[in-house]
Amino acid sequence: MSSIHETAVISETAKIYGDVQIEADVRIHDFVVIYDSVILSAGVVVYEGAIIGRPPVSITSLSRKISMASKTTVIGMNSVISPHSIVYADTVIGSCTLIGDGASIREGSRIGDACIIGRSVMINYNVRIGNNTKVMSLTNITGNTIIGDNVFISVLVSTANDNKLGVLGYDENRVRGPVIEDDASIGEGAVLLPSVRIGRGSIVGAGAVVTKDVPDNTLVMGVPAKVVREL
Amino acid sequence: MSSIHETAVISETAKIYGDVQIEADVRIHDFVVIYDSVILSAGVVVYEGAIIGRPPVSITSLSRKISMASKTTVIGMNSVISPHSIVYADTVIGSCTLIGDGASIREGSRIGDACIIGRSVMINYNVRIGNNTKVMSLTNITGNTIIGDNVFISVLVSTANDNKLGVLGYDENRVRGPVIEDDASIGEGAVLLPSVRIGRGSIVGAGAVVTKDVPDNTLVMGVPAKVVREL
Amino acid sequence: MSSIHETAVISETAKIYGDVQIEADVRIHDFVVIYDSVILSAGVVVYEGAIIGRPPVSITSLSRKISMASKTTVIGMNSVISPHSIVYADTVIGSCTLIGDGASIREGSRIGDACIIGRSVMINYNVRIGNNTKVMSLTNITGNTIIGDNVFISVLVSTANDNKLGVLGYDENRVRGPVIEDDASIGEGAVLLPSVRIGRGSIVGAGAVVTKDVPDNTLVMGVPAKVVREL
Repeated sequence: MSSIHETAVISETAKIYGDVQIEADVRIHDFVVIYDSVILSAGVVVYEGAIIGRPPVSITSLSRKISMASKTTVIGMNSVISPHSIVYADTVIGSCTLIGDGASIREGSRIGDACIIGRSVMINYNVRIGNNTKVMSLTNITGNTIIGDNVFISVLVSTANDNKLGVLGYDENRVRGPVIEDDASIGEGAVLLPSVRIGRGSIVGAGAVVTKDVPDNTLVMGVPAKVVREL
Repeated sequence: MSSIHETAVISETAKIYGDVQIEADVRIHDFVVIYDSVILSAGVVVYEGAIIGRPPVSITSLSRKISMASKTTVIGMNSVISPHSIVYADTVIGSCTLIGDGASIREGSRIGDACIIGRSVMINYNVRIGNNTKVMSLTNITGNTIIGDNVFISVLVSTANDNKLGVLGYDENRVRGPVIEDDASIGEGAVLLPSVRIGRGSIVGAGAVVTKDVPDNTLVMGVPAKVVREL
Repeated sequence: MSSIHETAVISETAKIYGDVQIEADVRIHDFVVIYDSVILSAGVVVYEGAIIGRPPVSITSLSRKISMASKTTVIGMNSVISPHSIVYADTVIGSCTLIGDGASIREGSRIGDACIIGRSVMINYNVRIGNNTKVMSLTNITGNTIIGDNVFISVLVSTANDNKLGVLGYDENRVRGPVIEDDASIGEGAVLLPSVRIGRGSIVGAGAVVTKDVPDNTLVMGVPAKVVREL
């Protein structure tokens, strides 16, 4: 049964399907769609055209079978969901986090507190993001990526998770995105190959193509990326 | 005159303009807009905020005159049109194909069966895509591009069709995107220059900048891309 | 008090909040949201799901304090605002300019006449763009960027404005995007570092990473970009 706090303000054009929990001072703008089992914590704002809690779509042409550990979607206190962004079911977003215009957050992802996920960013399935991390506009975070705290990922960064480019089908143990450790920074337009580790406090230069692990506190640049110096 | 099958389920907030053909078991979600002369085949699902059959907009600042061979838009059986995606008029999409969140498919394009067009992908005018081909998130497919069957194009790949960067105006014979043959794979963040041919079964490495044709069954990498080995 | 010309056609599903000025022959399609203090000049067309005049959102995790010099948003005569695009408050767009599907234009930006801003382009805060300039799909224009007249910026171009990647916080004098002078062209997938100047009539090759200023009438290519020849 739905629970909607009396101080929540919900536009008359918004659509709510199924049972949801909407806490104090939540604001839901026009043309928003909220699906079943969504929890919007106190102070959350959901802007026009955003969709929260949508189950992912399965289709025969996908190599990876869709699965969800839970159908609950939680948006933490005072977080902001921007226009036209889509937060799929089985996602947990912390407090004071901003999801930008038109971003997609896929099922199984966990995003911490005080993060910024920029405009049109794709966060694919089963991504882990810590606290105080920023992922800037038009960047793609592939499925099964792990990102720490205080990480900065600039615009138009690409990541991938399958060296076999889909030929072998999906195997969660083999198909792995990068691991980006705490305090690392990734420059604009950088390309990270599947499963590379970016060490704590390291910096990847703009436009670099990272083909192997980067140690902690190291600056790398170039195509392919090479160590420039320790930091 | 519109024909809407009795098993179709259409949200009351969806808007349908003009004459359309909506077949069995079609599902149209909230805030969808369907324009004139759209055919949604049996089992098609159209998600929130998607727009199908919109005529492209002409404006004096465009160098290319908009033209349409037909105003009919066809979505094949069991295909899925994701939220906020836009399929322009004069487009044909095959069966069991997924168009991702916020993707745009421009007029004159033809996409085959069992394809995946990822999130925020731009498929520009007069693009041909075969069957079982995947174009991943945030990739741009320029106008007049030809893509075969079983092709894999990763995320944030850019293609262009005009070496003169618009200075000479539009000429369909000169302004040509790449030709990507069957079974080829293009790595994340790769850049393909106008009219390059990527041979059958070839692989373009992540972040490569392809400035000339790639033979069949060849791996290329680097900036500019060079042959690494035969496959 | 709102002023809506009798020849304007406004969809019944569009939402208008606050006082607006809507001039002759304006057309507003379904599910559009118009906020306070928006001026839509004669002949403007606003397509489905677009949002105009939205105040930017402040959240504690943003390093830059949101400020607006004015809350007025002006769209010039005969310009087109495409589906799902968002034009924030305190923005001025000239006449005969096309804002593409799903583009975002942030507060403080000024865009001239007869420009094309492509699909899913991000124009961040306080950007200046002259007349007859094209920014193609999926490109990111960072805050505090200056772009002249007759500039061509291809697809998936990245720009950034902070060499310190956010570590020092926001200072408008230090955090500067590129300056791209009149008649310059930027190739697809190029990466421009913070505050680089691209000289008048110069060309940046596809996939180039520009780390320092480019003189007038010069072709640069490569990673990092080097001078190839004068033009």
